[in-house]
Amino acid sequence: MNKILRIDMGAAGGPKTVVTEVGDYAGFGGRALTSAVVSKEVPATCHPLSAENKLVIAPGMLSGTTAAMSGRISVGCKSPLTGGIKEANAGGQASQVLGRLGYAAIVLEGKPSGDDLYKVVITKDGVRVVAANSLKMLGNYKTVEKLVAEHGNRIAVISIGPAGEMKLSAASIACTDPELRPTRHAGRGGVGAVMGSKGVKAIVLDDTGMKMRSPKDPEAFKEANKRWVEGLRKHPVTGEALPAYGTNVLANVVNEAGAYPTYNFKQGRFDGVAKISGETQAETETARGGSATHGCHRGCVIRCSGIYHDKDGKYLTKQPEYETVWAHGANCGIDDLDSIAMLDFLDDDTGIDTIEMGATIGVAMDAGLARFGDAQAAINLVKEVAKGSPLGRILGSGAAVTGKVFGVERVPVVKGQSMPAYDPRAVKGIGVTYATTPMGADHTAGYAVATNLLKVGGDVDPLSTRGQIELSRNLQIATAAVDATGMCLFVAFAVLDQPETFQALIDMINACHGLKLTADDVAALGKKVLSMERDFNARAGFSAKHDRLPDYFKNEAVAPHNVVFDIPDEELDQVFNW
Amino acid sequence: MNKILRIDMGAAGGPKTVVTEVGDYAGFGGRALTSAVVSKEVPATCHPLSAENKLVIAPGMLSGTTAAMSGRISVGCKSPLTGGIKEANAGGQASQVLGRLGYAAIVLEGKPSGDDLYKVVITKDGVRVVAANSLKMLGNYKTVEKLVAEHGNRIAVISIGPAGEMKLSAASIACTDPELRPTRHAGRGGVGAVMGSKGVKAIVLDDTGMKMRSPKDPEAFKEANKRWVEGLRKHPVTGEALPAYGTNVLANVVNEAGAYPTYNFKQGRFDGVAKISGETQAETETARGGSATHGCHRGCVIRCSGIYHDKDGKYLTKQPEYETVWAHGANCGIDDLDSIAMLDFLDDDTGIDTIEMGATIGVAMDAGLARFGDAQAAINLVKEVAKGSPLGRILGSGAAVTGKVFGVERVPVVKGQSMPAYDPRAVKGIGVTYATTPMGADHTAGYAVATNLLKVGGDVDPLSTRGQIELSRNLQIATAAVDATGMCLFVAFAVLDQPETFQALIDMINACHGLKLTADDVAALGKKVLSMERDFNARAGFSAKHDRLPDYFKNEAVAPHNVVFDIPDEELDQVFNW
Repeated sequence: MNKILRIDMGAAGGPKTVVTEVGDYAGFGGRALTSAVVSKEVPATCHPLSAENKLVIAPGMLSGTTAAMSGRISVGCKSPLTGGIKEANAGGQASQVLGRLGYAAIVLEGKPSGDDLYKVVITKDGVRVVAANSLKMLGNYKTVEKLVAEHGNRIAVISIGPAGEMKLSAASIACTDPELRPTRHAGRGGVGAVMGSKGVKAIVLDDTGMKMRSPKDPEAFKEANKRWVEGLRKHPVTGEALPAYGTNVLANVVNEAGAYPTYNFKQGRFDGVAKISGETQAETETARGGSATHGCHRGCVIRCSGIYHDKDGKYLTKQPEYETVWAHGANCGIDDLDSIAMLDFLDDDTGIDTIEMGATIGVAMDAGLARFGDAQAAINLVKEVAKGSPLGRILGSGAAVTGKVFGVERVPVVKGQSMPAYDPRAVKGIGVTYATTPMGADHTAGYAVATNLLKVGGDVDPLSTRGQIELSRNLQIATAAVDATGMCLFVAFAVLDQPETFQALIDMINACHGLKLTADDVAALGKKVLSMERDFNARAGFSAKHDRLPDYFKNEAVAPHNVVFDIPDEELDQVFNW
Repeated sequence: MNKILRIDMGAAGGPKTVVTEVGDYAGFGGRALTSAVVSKEVPATCHPLSAENKLVIAPGMLSGTTAAMSGRISVGCKSPLTGGIKEANAGGQASQVLGRLGYAAIVLEGKPSGDDLYKVVITKDGVRVVAANSLKMLGNYKTVEKLVAEHGNRIAVISIGPAGEMKLSAASIACTDPELRPTRHAGRGGVGAVMGSKGVKAIVLDDTGMKMRSPKDPEAFKEANKRWVEGLRKHPVTGEALPAYGTNVLANVVNEAGAYPTYNFKQGRFDGVAKISGETQAETETARGGSATHGCHRGCVIRCSGIYHDKDGKYLTKQPEYETVWAHGANCGIDDLDSIAMLDFLDDDTGIDTIEMGATIGVAMDAGLARFGDAQAAINLVKEVAKGSPLGRILGSGAAVTGKVFGVERVPVVKGQSMPAYDPRAVKGIGVTYATTPMGADHTAGYAVATNLLKVGGDVDPLSTRGQIELSRNLQIATAAVDATGMCLFVAFAVLDQPETFQALIDMINACHGLKLTADDVAALGKKVLSMERDFNARAGFSAKHDRLPDYFKNEAVAPHNVVFDIPDEELDQVFNW
């Protein structure tokens, strides 16, 4: 994993492939690597769909090894949705396979002049970039099916759906799970549109003939990995709640806390929550012969994923995540799991971010395009995106554009990106993260919900203004570091609560790379990543004024606690003042 | 003209009217007044369509007097198009009539809770705000027709079309001309959407029973006005070219200079220019019984407007302006004056900015929605806006949104607002103005074309980087001051070249208000206005990074001169460093 694959899609005579040493980027993986490349090589003022933008796809520092949970892949670029730097990450098989093929990153550069659509095929024997026009405008499922027919079932696939080909700002990039379903998405910020602008429909990864990456110190690595897995298994969130019910175990918790945004962020509790909770979802999945427990990549020990079957017991989609169930559920007033699962499938197949799409439909409902609670209308709206109709293109451009086009005032976005499933007025720590992360509103950038509501890593009252800045700051630093490792962010529950589990992670990194990192070094890495990202955004035109929630969150109280977002601006400006 | 009419459209029990003294705003008129109110009273981070935004409509310091050319009215707010402060101004009768009714400004505040649409009726007897739901979704022409039927033909009307009611970001506000045609538009920045968000369809002004405003020193005023008119009549631009051919006299001039943006800013000369030039236009108008010379308000001595008849000699629209003929013509590859006139009519009737609409159709053509040169397709696209179809709403939201929704990279906007009819690469002075004015790309904010191409007020080579910063700075300062007076900007041609005409203007202001302003005081007023505007924008999140042209103007050379925009960023940052 010491080489970078660069593909110039705009080269004269067709795409040109160059493999270089990792060079200056040594020591970086995942988000640290994508943000380093974007920050250094992409002109901050360029158009996100221009030849000057780059799409960087990077496994983490531990991806491709036997380290449990190391299957996240980072995708970075200048975001078409926010106009700032973007890292979106996903599970699935791609990270491990790409790591074992020896690549620290794939960088898609330039822009093809013609209309050809390409696929990139990477095996132990090298890289081929070939026209794949027969895949044009296919959904992700059909795309993968065709690629498997041609390349066999030992592959992992990274692909875009019609939304990415149409360069819509909410387009995602799909990665296949172990069963070759395109269900794990780098969803946020329109990374799929950038892949589409490069003319790349799919990247086929085949590590046949390659071995697991071998750590510098195999014994120490094995021993640390053992402690690591033990730590994950013993924590109640990673060892019990997530495996049993998946991420949607949060629905009841967040609803109870009055922080479950309902009807486009108009109230903090949803009457229909019991019908769409993780518990109900797991029961339904089990009863229909699906599965409530499943790993999105091999080597996962949390297994928070699942398989959702329809009423006839036939595969419909993977277990919709908490965020998806919320976005298409409570946020749109929809309390029917089957409809939500259908929306999840359509999003995955079209290649669009479920959070952005659900938030967008909430705004569209406020615009009068559909009634809150009308599941069929929501399904029809998502189908418009795949069709590429003018309405579909509006919706596929996200909530901010939809709000602008339809004259809606209440649009829950920061830096143009939709807020996820936690009302920032009732969980103020996550509000600080939404406002300040360089990514635009993003819960994963500093998941203060853990400490505000789940009491992991401490206990900070979600309704108080106290302690939220420090909480978000520390979590944003830690997350930037975790995102560099290729580790699933859910390891944070155990890492935050159990010092010995944090130590096991550091020991694994050191054993793998022959390093002697301390906890301080890890924090320094996180700070370095955030600094690069903020520097890019500053050059792109972002200032402290963009580290704010929309005004209505400060003026409009949300039930049941009747609270507003009241962290002062001057405090928000202290988040990165470490 | 010492009172401000404030109408709270969101008051409990219905709209509430309050008339206050001008107070702290004394000494301000036109743009100086609108920008002062917006800067002081509107929270910079508010949503442009929210109750917190205000729409300020202000005649100039000399409007309502006998001063020639004093018929411009300023409209200010936070712009839905740019997100920054906005002043758009228009000719027509409204400014004079409002001035004579004694109002320094109308301020629309708040936001109605219901769906009612209102009209505001202002006479010498006072102000009424009444429901006018029968006007819903009517075009500006039909709206005025109905209002004339009810209120008689001694009125002036300020109104919005369907675009404003739909709160589209490119919606304009129409003012009637002396013949009660809604043809003079405060076009830029979506001011019509803000009027729509206030629930106000029309403002009916009737100054029956009121007199001309009387200057403090009538004799001195009369004498200065005489010198003023003499100065305007003797300058070749204001005395000859504009009266004879209208603003479109520029088409051949700018085309010859290689600065006439063609096919969405892909080249600087248009093959079909002879068919759409001011000369051809004037000839056509005269031959068909229209008129090539007409004043947009009483008291105009330049009379650059005109009347355009269709092939059957029937009124179609007012003489389309240079900017409109360019936007719908060369920029879209259309060389048919009748089609351009039809587009002008549709824009006026729908209530949408002709510059933004033409630029948007250029982007839509690059997106493949229509072929360059296809006039019927362009007409159909504008008709979509009035219909409010999803496609129409996209287009009515302007070029930036259209580019985003359709994945187009080459979008000629600054701060979200479309560039007008001069390629900034071939007229670099106007490029500096586009980049730096607080208004978003706007030629009227500092019309460097005058000096770059017409050699008015000096001679600065349009293709050189030298002298453009100073030129734009001085013109932006002068313009901000002129926009405060209510004077038509075209007076600048004479004012810049003839010191005695500038002095006549100052003498008129002094005689009118009993002041002793000097030329330095006028410049200080211009600086004060710009400073307030820039302060608002800074609070709204704008920084030096937003005072830039899109990257492709720096990278992509434009024929025939094969030049790029090469004024260094550091120099752009010096424009307001006076």
